[in-house]
Amino acid sequence: MKPGATPREVDAVVAVVESIGFRAHPMPGATRTAIGITGNQGPIDGRRFENIPGVAEVIRVTKPYKLITLDLRPEKTVVRVDDATIGASELAIIAGPCAIENRDQAFAVAETVQQSGARFFRGGVWKPRTSPYAFQGLGEKGWKIMAEIRNAFGLKIVTEALEPPHVDLIEDYGDVIQIGARNMQNFSLLRRAGRSKLPVLLKRGMAATLEEWLLAAEYIMAEGNYNVILCERGVRTFAQHTRNTLDLASVPAIRRISHLPVIVDPSHGTGSAYMVTPLARAGVAVGADGLMIEVHNKPELALSDGAQALTPSQFAQLIAEVRAIREATAPDSNKTRIQNPQNSEIPVDALANR
Amino acid sequence: MKPGATPREVDAVVAVVESIGFRAHPMPGATRTAIGITGNQGPIDGRRFENIPGVAEVIRVTKPYKLITLDLRPEKTVVRVDDATIGASELAIIAGPCAIENRDQAFAVAETVQQSGARFFRGGVWKPRTSPYAFQGLGEKGWKIMAEIRNAFGLKIVTEALEPPHVDLIEDYGDVIQIGARNMQNFSLLRRAGRSKLPVLLKRGMAATLEEWLLAAEYIMAEGNYNVILCERGVRTFAQHTRNTLDLASVPAIRRISHLPVIVDPSHGTGSAYMVTPLARAGVAVGADGLMIEVHNKPELALSDGAQALTPSQFAQLIAEVRAIREATAPDSNKTRIQNPQNSEIPVDALANR
Amino acid sequence: MKPGATPREVDAVVAVVESIGFRAHPMPGATRTAIGITGNQGPIDGRRFENIPGVAEVIRVTKPYKLITLDLRPEKTVVRVDDATIGASELAIIAGPCAIENRDQAFAVAETVQQSGARFFRGGVWKPRTSPYAFQGLGEKGWKIMAEIRNAFGLKIVTEALEPPHVDLIEDYGDVIQIGARNMQNFSLLRRAGRSKLPVLLKRGMAATLEEWLLAAEYIMAEGNYNVILCERGVRTFAQHTRNTLDLASVPAIRRISHLPVIVDPSHGTGSAYMVTPLARAGVAVGADGLMIEVHNKPELALSDGAQALTPSQFAQLIAEVRAIREATAPDSNKTRIQNPQNSEIPVDALANR
Amino acid sequence: MKPGATPREVDAVVAVVESIGFRAHPMPGATRTAIGITGNQGPIDGRRFENIPGVAEVIRVTKPYKLITLDLRPEKTVVRVDDATIGASELAIIAGPCAIENRDQAFAVAETVQQSGARFFRGGVWKPRTSPYAFQGLGEKGWKIMAEIRNAFGLKIVTEALEPPHVDLIEDYGDVIQIGARNMQNFSLLRRAGRSKLPVLLKRGMAATLEEWLLAAEYIMAEGNYNVILCERGVRTFAQHTRNTLDLASVPAIRRISHLPVIVDPSHGTGSAYMVTPLARAGVAVGADGLMIEVHNKPELALSDGAQALTPSQFAQLIAEVRAIREATAPDSNKTRIQNPQNSEIPVDALANR
Repeated sequence: MKPGATPREVDAVVAVVESIGFRAHPMPGATRTAIGITGNQGPIDGRRFENIPGVAEVIRVTKPYKLITLDLRPEKTVVRVDDATIGASELAIIAGPCAIENRDQAFAVAETVQQSGARFFRGGVWKPRTSPYAFQGLGEKGWKIMAEIRNAFGLKIVTEALEPPHVDLIEDYGDVIQIGARNMQNFSLLRRAGRSKLPVLLKRGMAATLEEWLLAAEYIMAEGNYNVILCERGVRTFAQHTRNTLDLASVPAIRRISHLPVIVDPSHGTGSAYMVTPLARAGVAVGADGLMIEVHNKPELALSDGAQALTPSQFAQLIAEVRAIREATAPDSNKTRIQNPQNSEIPVDALANR
Repeated sequence: MKPGATPREVDAVVAVVESIGFRAHPMPGATRTAIGITGNQGPIDGRRFENIPGVAEVIRVTKPYKLITLDLRPEKTVVRVDDATIGASELAIIAGPCAIENRDQAFAVAETVQQSGARFFRGGVWKPRTSPYAFQGLGEKGWKIMAEIRNAFGLKIVTEALEPPHVDLIEDYGDVIQIGARNMQNFSLLRRAGRSKLPVLLKRGMAATLEEWLLAAEYIMAEGNYNVILCERGVRTFAQHTRNTLDLASVPAIRRISHLPVIVDPSHGTGSAYMVTPLARAGVAVGADGLMIEVHNKPELALSDGAQALTPSQFAQLIAEVRAIREATAPDSNKTRIQNPQNSEIPVDALANR
Repeated sequence: MKPGATPREVDAVVAVVESIGFRAHPMPGATRTAIGITGNQGPIDGRRFENIPGVAEVIRVTKPYKLITLDLRPEKTVVRVDDATIGASELAIIAGPCAIENRDQAFAVAETVQQSGARFFRGGVWKPRTSPYAFQGLGEKGWKIMAEIRNAFGLKIVTEALEPPHVDLIEDYGDVIQIGARNMQNFSLLRRAGRSKLPVLLKRGMAATLEEWLLAAEYIMAEGNYNVILCERGVRTFAQHTRNTLDLASVPAIRRISHLPVIVDPSHGTGSAYMVTPLARAGVAVGADGLMIEVHNKPELALSDGAQALTPSQFAQLIAEVRAIREATAPDSNKTRIQNPQNSEIPVDALANR
Repeated sequence: MKPGATPREVDAVVAVVESIGFRAHPMPGATRTAIGITGNQGPIDGRRFENIPGVAEVIRVTKPYKLITLDLRPEKTVVRVDDATIGASELAIIAGPCAIENRDQAFAVAETVQQSGARFFRGGVWKPRTSPYAFQGLGEKGWKIMAEIRNAFGLKIVTEALEPPHVDLIEDYGDVIQIGARNMQNFSLLRRAGRSKLPVLLKRGMAATLEEWLLAAEYIMAEGNYNVILCERGVRTFAQHTRNTLDLASVPAIRRISHLPVIVDPSHGTGSAYMVTPLARAGVAVGADGLMIEVHNKPELALSDGAQALTPSQFAQLIAEVRAIREATAPDSNKTRIQNPQNSEIPVDALANR
């Protein structure tokens, strides 16, 4: 739509799209609103829309994905949860234990997270475990603890849904729906999350190509939920010094294609506490919009993933280090601007953002 | 050896080791000299050495590698080439074209490299190419250009040896012998490089585990050359958005095991110019001792690997950005120290270095 | 249980197990019945059971999986669907189109399948597709066609469930529940299938280790459904000449650990029709209990996976070839017995079965 | 060249090619001789050759490889070593120990190999070992044992060259030069082998794509040695139940592109003796021209790779089984021909060979 298009004009275009049997996806941006169209088999004649008042241009997206693309929305999506953001200038920190184990553990970790200045608390209530005989999470009991933490600490709650009914529960007391690596192509779950009002944090599958991951995000957006955050958590390779191989090149690769924010999970991405901080630094340096970090008050006693959880003091150190890097690489930092041969300044991240 | 052990005492231990048919590897450190022993089948009775004057303790290394370990040398190796270093506080930058194509190209790029403050110039003279019909490098003609650049710009010359006779030539006019990913387990070449006085930059093989890579370094060191620099350049995985998947977790993993310096090559590690700068930032942030970067005065005309070469202005921007990160993460930076709960300061990189 | 244990004795043991809060899994075998116990945290004192009448011995399974192991059931499981079997001497052939597209297509392919002597008809009704905009299957309309085929041709119906409600529908008109590679760790779906009376065909995930795959089978069995068939369909690797890399070594690897039957899917395992027959031959030669093959009456018009579907005449040729191999490698074949040095005969497959 | 072209006519074409600065590669076939041309940068005007006597047609090969292609030579290459063949109807068996350890071991294994009817004896004299401290082979001493075995048993000797000088030695007493997985892109070694009169067995690199592997063969052929045998030995993947993942789909994939024979090495391809026989059966069933098998008289005492070596009796059993499969799948077998709809017979392997 044109920069000054009115809501009424947007609605009129949506109505036309729907009248011919397709689905319209209006996405407001800083200066103008884009309207994605899905549901068509093959190309639509764009001239049909060109003369509707307020329409600036009709762009055909020939890629397998539509709604996630910079073609549709050239500026980065900022996901907002009350006053917290993911994708804006603030570095988003999502931290907490792998699993909620009991009230004391959850409150102890939440306090650490809050003190660090992080805005999001993670914690598994329903745990996807490789073995049927391993601890499967506290379930609803854990969910009540999460609701208490939200009230007590003002942290935004991020938790993983394993099946569509979990989304219903998260909608009652949570803030962000996480979809885990194993469920990246659980299409029923993606569609259900796509019909939610809550943002969705979509982890990359263990063996997912970039295209498959972006198309999984497209599944969510095709249902009308445009608040999707991508999370790189490593892929499975032959390497055995880490649990997964963290593929940080996915961050600039996504930037070049999509407007969606991307965060990095160095905890699952490495599987070893001693590597989490270096890879968190790398994640921020590569240009991620945030981090997801596992913290435990007593990692040696954790019921799951203890080997990769940071202690409170290690976590505090991590936060100090990544903030220093974020500051050093911020677009308005004096340090990282240089005089280029043509005498004009290039902001940091300029290459990554193109 | 004890901190105050004399050269004569060291020589005496070496003589004993050799007298019983083994090889001694004396490695001087900041405070004391370690002497590695190889050539034994199975354990040696350590008591044999304990009472020789100057000997502090006898440590048995039960890992498959010996000389690369922190057990033998607890402090990081600093490789020195005249006044330039790799592994010390200075961030080592090795830059230049994929291949030396002609005198004009090489001089143009060398000027860019020198102006950036980088100390090392890379450039392939003998190129390992997948196809027998692709440009194979200028050979000796290119080698003469390299010698000229060394004189004209004072840059240290890093070039790849494909076979043992290349090492002879590099010893005449070069500074660092590069061993490429395809030759990481070319054991004849490793042994020849191990008998050279020049430092060896050893790239990780495309499918090399950490152990295989460290054992390739051990091949070089077992011949008596202890100046080995490891270079992470990505591994082959299913991912197709990059030429290789850059495995930055190898940097903290090596730190935990070995005293050898590690650098990162984001050019081969990604294969796309637009990703080189973000991944270079990540490489410095994760704790690498340096970077290897492909630069070309006219990437669109490059005879090999043009898609991943930076232009001079992109390279200048990269240098500005990685220096800002290095400064922000340096051990003496104020920004990255925090008060920990026990009121003592933890330096940045403290976790990574353990 | 002892070979002659009565049903009443078996029931008595089950009652004891349940009385102490665990779950009993009685599995009758050719000569004796094994009873698996799950639900315990840590070891149980086995002496508790040793003196119950009919009990032969108490074996502790220390592996992460219990019910899938040869420790529990030393002979191979034979899955029976009416008079058809998977895991017995008969080579099980499951064939049909990727997706049910319409009645004519489905009937044409079913006729081909029936004529070949195959007993199982596959066809997707709900299709898991990477893109939300690709053909998603006919859904319930397709399901009615499947029911017609079952009646008309007497073929056993194998179809994939994408979510728990699909299992309800398959229970009405189908014979075998397929769980696809993308859902191998969709634990809600595994548990629902574990509560069904129908056999479950469990495909290996794209990046699943053997242990993860076997534990996914364990999820199904832990709910009480012991009729699980494993299906090797290739894993994701760097290789690009095939869609997936068919890992035939998984067949002897499973044989060494588990009593579950294993089949091979060379259609998804290669992605190219010209490779399906050679790899089907290999699958039978390696010792698989059956094959899953995509056949289409007009592959060039298929709505999904046309590149890997065989024509009816290619499929007939495949059947002839794999039967010849099965016959040549059957345990009672004269050709494949040799006099060994100790003058006793070793049956074919002897190594593989140990 | 035309079917009846005389040697003189072939020589005349070669002379023309060389007169314009290119290299001619005459390859005689069953019915006609093909002449490959390399050394050109970009296309040559083919009309230049069309009117030379004996020339049938000029075909431009646009693929990255030239000499390995079916475009150049439509029938399969048969490599002949005296009266033994690889690539003809006979199944080629290359067997022996990983390394020659001493005269007794080598003779004991050679006797087993000879009795099985195999024609080729393998055995490492120079061993590429991951660790510099592992057994590196007997070197020249082992080479003398190999020469004795050749005389005593009439077996053809296959041994691995690790560096160009080894090729000189193999030329004196050996029959086939093996180039190992680690050296697949050791281009100096490939070129040296390309200048030998002996056939070259080229193993696939651990992370080699099909194209890289075929281009490595092209390196050998571009030097004038057209007797190249490809050997699939597995690739490195995330899977951990085997040492490598044997990629049997490479066999039909190569058949579709190249005239070179292909064999399979299930010993390195699995790393476990219990899997070797099943995967050997699969290799023959998929259409390989031969097998390479590790056999040891006392695997439990082997100095290298003992876990994957077969005992003499296991090896005899393997031979019986793979011969049964070869016979069942041979083009003239009655069992595997069917009447196709057009009433003409399709020979087994027909699909694989196209």
